[in-house]
Amino acid sequence: MACTVSCSRVFVVRCSASPSGGGGGGNAVRVNGAAHRAPLQVGAALETSINRSLAELSPPLLPLLPTDDAGEERSRQNIPTEKQTVDPFRQALIVEGGVRYQQTLVVRSYEVGPDKTATLETVLNLLQETALNHVWMSGLLGDGFGATHGMIRNNLIWVVSRMHVQVDQYPIWGEVLDIDTWVGSSGKNGMRRDWLIRGRNSGDVFVRATSTWVMMNKVTRRLSKMPEEVRAEIAPWFIDRHAIYQEEATDKIIKLDSNAMYVDSDLKPKRSDLDMNHHVNNVKYVRWMLETLPDHFQQQNQLSSIILEYRKECGSSDVVQSICQPDDDSIPPQEDVSMAIGPSLSPELISGHHSLAGALQHSPMKYTHLLQLKAGDKYEEIVRGRTTWKKKSYKAP
Amino acid sequence: MACTVSCSRVFVVRCSASPSGGGGGGNAVRVNGAAHRAPLQVGAALETSINRSLAELSPPLLPLLPTDDAGEERSRQNIPTEKQTVDPFRQALIVEGGVRYQQTLVVRSYEVGPDKTATLETVLNLLQETALNHVWMSGLLGDGFGATHGMIRNNLIWVVSRMHVQVDQYPIWGEVLDIDTWVGSSGKNGMRRDWLIRGRNSGDVFVRATSTWVMMNKVTRRLSKMPEEVRAEIAPWFIDRHAIYQEEATDKIIKLDSNAMYVDSDLKPKRSDLDMNHHVNNVKYVRWMLETLPDHFQQQNQLSSIILEYRKECGSSDVVQSICQPDDDSIPPQEDVSMAIGPSLSPELISGHHSLAGALQHSPMKYTHLLQLKAGDKYEEIVRGRTTWKKKSYKAP
Repeated sequence: MACTVSCSRVFVVRCSASPSGGGGGGNAVRVNGAAHRAPLQVGAALETSINRSLAELSPPLLPLLPTDDAGEERSRQNIPTEKQTVDPFRQALIVEGGVRYQQTLVVRSYEVGPDKTATLETVLNLLQETALNHVWMSGLLGDGFGATHGMIRNNLIWVVSRMHVQVDQYPIWGEVLDIDTWVGSSGKNGMRRDWLIRGRNSGDVFVRATSTWVMMNKVTRRLSKMPEEVRAEIAPWFIDRHAIYQEEATDKIIKLDSNAMYVDSDLKPKRSDLDMNHHVNNVKYVRWMLETLPDHFQQQNQLSSIILEYRKECGSSDVVQSICQPDDDSIPPQEDVSMAIGPSLSPELISGHHSLAGALQHSPMKYTHLLQLKAGDKYEEIVRGRTTWKKKSYKAP
Repeated sequence: MACTVSCSRVFVVRCSASPSGGGGGGNAVRVNGAAHRAPLQVGAALETSINRSLAELSPPLLPLLPTDDAGEERSRQNIPTEKQTVDPFRQALIVEGGVRYQQTLVVRSYEVGPDKTATLETVLNLLQETALNHVWMSGLLGDGFGATHGMIRNNLIWVVSRMHVQVDQYPIWGEVLDIDTWVGSSGKNGMRRDWLIRGRNSGDVFVRATSTWVMMNKVTRRLSKMPEEVRAEIAPWFIDRHAIYQEEATDKIIKLDSNAMYVDSDLKPKRSDLDMNHHVNNVKYVRWMLETLPDHFQQQNQLSSIILEYRKECGSSDVVQSICQPDDDSIPPQEDVSMAIGPSLSPELISGHHSLAGALQHSPMKYTHLLQLKAGDKYEEIVRGRTTWKKKSYKAP
């Protein structure tokens, strides 16, 4: 049941769906002048033009879809039906009068990579975990997938449309982390969720992240307005606070084609890549994206920022292509660069420590990414991405 | 730096290395009559015949190898140098006068699979995590990799030779778990580590596990006797208690060849599969093993037991082959089995619920596994495995 979820354009571009109310016909949504894949229609009931600073709710990271076994939910799970302010086993608190969730965790031995620091996958996992725990503690969790009771009554599920994660520093094995997360409005029908990950001992901020979410009707697969009863459930939790003060260029990410510099084809999900919703999990998307970059690049550099724009989910039987293109002005020249230091030079391959080259070596490099899946003889987009990198530093902070 | 670690035979077979002391020449160890790969020598200082109930220490799950960046260990890590009895952030205690480590954790949203229960990978990760945390709290952790201070002075590291994990039930998302682990003697120069994972609410035992460990000199790559100063560090922690009361058949696992029923070749590790030691992590081994089984088999059945015998590590540049063979008497017949119920019939494919077939459907099935890596024009063993399966049950407990 690979389904057709896509909603990023509601935030990123202005939609040309019918401005009138009603059930919403089959109007194709036009993105950058091209009609989008058939089922990607914005419900006509949804505002036709929703800008980036929208407005609503509270869920995990990935498109949250219904499962077939909701009736088999086991009683042991004990999802609270009343708001709780303390979750002792997760070491979590609801603070600031109920609007901020805070959880303390320790980076585990298997969550770090060869350099003994938490991997980006770990960071993404912890964002998902704390978001879902926040809803859990709020007493709003109706189905175990982030939908509130009001959403379930209205057949609505959450879908994430955009994620932006900035990593200032990767925490090390054994580091004690305080993770804060909260929600705010995002236009009339959406919600933003932000996170801050800090080291408990140092107070250093390791990670800042933000995401935007909308609701989809799980029967019609169309994006939906937020019903008043759902707004009443969640609006009391909203605060206006941004984890990322100055968002990087918020232009829409360009769409790559297979003429890009790096292309990996015929990628196939494994059973272990599937999440509770039987779709490929978010972390696997990012792995596919990053594995398309050369190994030696990732040995020398670390990701400092990733932006993801979600278009469509990927099921277990899909075949995926990962495409990646460096920004023109961040491609290191092929010739020996050690003698050619100048403003147009990318400094990432220069290894001197006490030279001008050394001083330049923390300049970022940027890449554009695309994951798409085979649909007959064409491709359909899963997610677009932008990554920014900096030279790895092995120095103690 | 793919290195040549192998030690399972010290537990599984009697070694024919020189019985006299000394530095140990180049005597090849004979296993089942065949000389083992060149560097797989048992240090002559090691007892020539070590049986399964040996004797010693305390570490993480995988062969623990030195890294190149020990000097860059960051100060933030705060590994304790004194024994601690409480680790509040990990929710851990040392109990029973110091011999048992207990940690409470909650199964996270990203640690469960499509059926909302913790994956086998999660179970293995949690075993590794609690073992290492135990050593951490003991104040014995010298290098962050499970070696004690005495081991570091003697250039010794831990290598795991065998692991046996029995899963009675897979905990679900949100389940609160109590994980206990302790160490005991295993012959004169080895150590066993056991684990018990229980549900806090029900008290149900989910997982029982045991493992055996020996020390290797990280310079000579030979197995080593336990120096007295190391014995003095760790022996006070030993208790004689077995998590698995009745070990399954402890016969050596047979070696498969490529005539087996299932063979996956040209498997290559990704960067994200490497652990802190720059080797492929244990969980990836198990993934490769299980992915060689057909998907539909794993959709219908769940693993109830896995035994692993480690031979050699796998580095990032190795190319791996995964081989798998069902036990003859557990291969379901190809014909329609619904009419042919008898004692020789494997019941796993029979789906009736109120029939004799239904009553039989929990009978186990068994598989033998082998992972090996390409070394020129031959293969070298990484790990042998045995798995036991039972029909999945979706009923609430």
